[in-house]
Amino acid sequence: MNVEQQHYRTIWPDTQTRYVTIIDQTRLPFAFELVRIDSVAAMVTAINTMQVRGAPLIGVSAAYGIALAMNQDTSDAALAMAAQQLLQSRPTAVNLAWAVQRMQTYLTQLPTSLRRDGAWQEVATMADEDVLQNQAIGRHGLVCIQKRYTDKPVQILTHCNAGWLATVDYGTALAPIYAAHDAGIPVHVWVDETRPRNQGASLTAWELAQHGVPHTVITDNAGGHLMQHGQVDMVIVGADRVTRTGDVCNKIGTYLKALAAFDQQIPFYAAVPSPTIDWQIENGLLDIEIEARNPEEVAWIQGLTAQGTIENVRVIPLQSQALNPAFDVTPARLVTGIITEKGVYAPDMLTSLQSH
Amino acid sequence: MNVEQQHYRTIWPDTQTRYVTIIDQTRLPFAFELVRIDSVAAMVTAINTMQVRGAPLIGVSAAYGIALAMNQDTSDAALAMAAQQLLQSRPTAVNLAWAVQRMQTYLTQLPTSLRRDGAWQEVATMADEDVLQNQAIGRHGLVCIQKRYTDKPVQILTHCNAGWLATVDYGTALAPIYAAHDAGIPVHVWVDETRPRNQGASLTAWELAQHGVPHTVITDNAGGHLMQHGQVDMVIVGADRVTRTGDVCNKIGTYLKALAAFDQQIPFYAAVPSPTIDWQIENGLLDIEIEARNPEEVAWIQGLTAQGTIENVRVIPLQSQALNPAFDVTPARLVTGIITEKGVYAPDMLTSLQSH
Repeated sequence: MNVEQQHYRTIWPDTQTRYVTIIDQTRLPFAFELVRIDSVAAMVTAINTMQVRGAPLIGVSAAYGIALAMNQDTSDAALAMAAQQLLQSRPTAVNLAWAVQRMQTYLTQLPTSLRRDGAWQEVATMADEDVLQNQAIGRHGLVCIQKRYTDKPVQILTHCNAGWLATVDYGTALAPIYAAHDAGIPVHVWVDETRPRNQGASLTAWELAQHGVPHTVITDNAGGHLMQHGQVDMVIVGADRVTRTGDVCNKIGTYLKALAAFDQQIPFYAAVPSPTIDWQIENGLLDIEIEARNPEEVAWIQGLTAQGTIENVRVIPLQSQALNPAFDVTPARLVTGIITEKGVYAPDMLTSLQSH
Repeated sequence: MNVEQQHYRTIWPDTQTRYVTIIDQTRLPFAFELVRIDSVAAMVTAINTMQVRGAPLIGVSAAYGIALAMNQDTSDAALAMAAQQLLQSRPTAVNLAWAVQRMQTYLTQLPTSLRRDGAWQEVATMADEDVLQNQAIGRHGLVCIQKRYTDKPVQILTHCNAGWLATVDYGTALAPIYAAHDAGIPVHVWVDETRPRNQGASLTAWELAQHGVPHTVITDNAGGHLMQHGQVDMVIVGADRVTRTGDVCNKIGTYLKALAAFDQQIPFYAAVPSPTIDWQIENGLLDIEIEARNPEEVAWIQGLTAQGTIENVRVIPLQSQALNPAFDVTPARLVTGIITEKGVYAPDMLTSLQSH
């Protein structure tokens, strides 16, 4: 998508030098800084410190990490070592393991002399596939937005960041919004701040602003009130995992918005690439373990001082503890539809997608 | 309640000098600073800058403001001028108008020679009444907590600050919690951070820590997830206004917690002094106008830097706007009971309190 009128992806190769450039997402929204990544070690650090984040982007970044390793040494040992380092950078990221596995499987069957070129070709294919998948999510989700359009801008609430910054381009939850905006359907986005890491306020708001999509940042507390007063036409969120029964595991706080949407009869959608659906799991509430992240993420907030420096401040008393569950599960009964690259499915019709 | 093992109220007179001391709540939780208020102008500033806040405390503070004015000049003109200045300090605060009115009515009937002593006596009575009322709320609410006690600590979620810092002492929502803790019933409090002004993280957590009540700060997003996993036994919040039908107007985000409590069959209580009940209003959602506060409260957060200074940082992009509705309305259908100084009432039984 656009940054200061110029098109960017979140990650791209220099085809001459075979290095990679990323947007340092830890500096957003107050600084737009590009970082050159020239080794697998540097990519591990970038993933680890969340300079790149978002499940689809982490996967593609790890694949680029393998390609960077192949620049130096195409042996089986080097491939295995690179894979191991990358897998340990964010141990819980499912897409990371999937992407590393795909690169390993593909490269192992090539003679070592072809692995360098092969790696850069394969990762380019993966990145393009991510973009195409997200564009398809955008097209299907656009239909849901069009349905809500009468004469006023469609008011869409989103939580966290499932935008182009979480993917290679376009995003998942934001793909339908970009598609609608670009198609001339007026939209306005309520951006949940999304404490504790504030991905809504710092990433979603920034990318919408850069692309010129009208939006307003609200606290995570405000969405229910806006829904009560007819100021939200629909909710679209991303998801980290969706069960075969349509339970949606997404950023903490999503369940509260789904409850309010249901209470106010407002459609609630999750937009995901179909590989995010876990066909093994029936009951998201019982069977998905929720990661408890570092309580320091609750205790400290990063922002910009009046002097223009990026600073962290503590917001809870020194004597108090915090708890930081990272995700919650929205039961399928609160979900209107799952928007995928293959179409939009009611939760109880998801299994028809499996055979699609 | 206690601060570093010593008992404090939020506001108290020096009976010799007839000045007032307050706790500067804008500096909490990182600095405990007392401020001497020696004139009505200084009290107007203290209310205006939210050094004192919370509806009951604002009322008593304004009454002290009248008493301070009487130190200088007991004429009708001085009384009227002081009242006017105080009323303009927080125009929407109902308790403030009520307290100023009470002092004016009382003093107007006294000869000017008795107004100085009369003012200091009347405000002392008002402060004590607030404390007694809150202790009664505590006693009635304690019964609700006892009902939930089996063998493990009772897990209570609260939103915003309706603790002793919002009153003269004891608080409203926290009064039952202090009563239970002091009676030896083990409790643990989940403290909602309460964006945008973070009164939960900065005031509720601090006062619970000072009084030794076990608690954990969570983001406003986390409560629903904790309820889904059996980690919340009951919710107790304060309220700015309650309708005769039992709709609860309280800090933004309360509605979302009430929805989750209802969904998970967890009791949800609002604790209020009975004057908070507005007998004129039937439908809270239609008839209570919600104050939209300054969006800068969403855009900026105050905290403590690693260097130990209290600093404000901006947390939304420079190009983005924010919206800041301050309150929401929880419909009576989601409310288990209203805890008052006269007893605990189901929402549809509130009117029996009117004739009590």
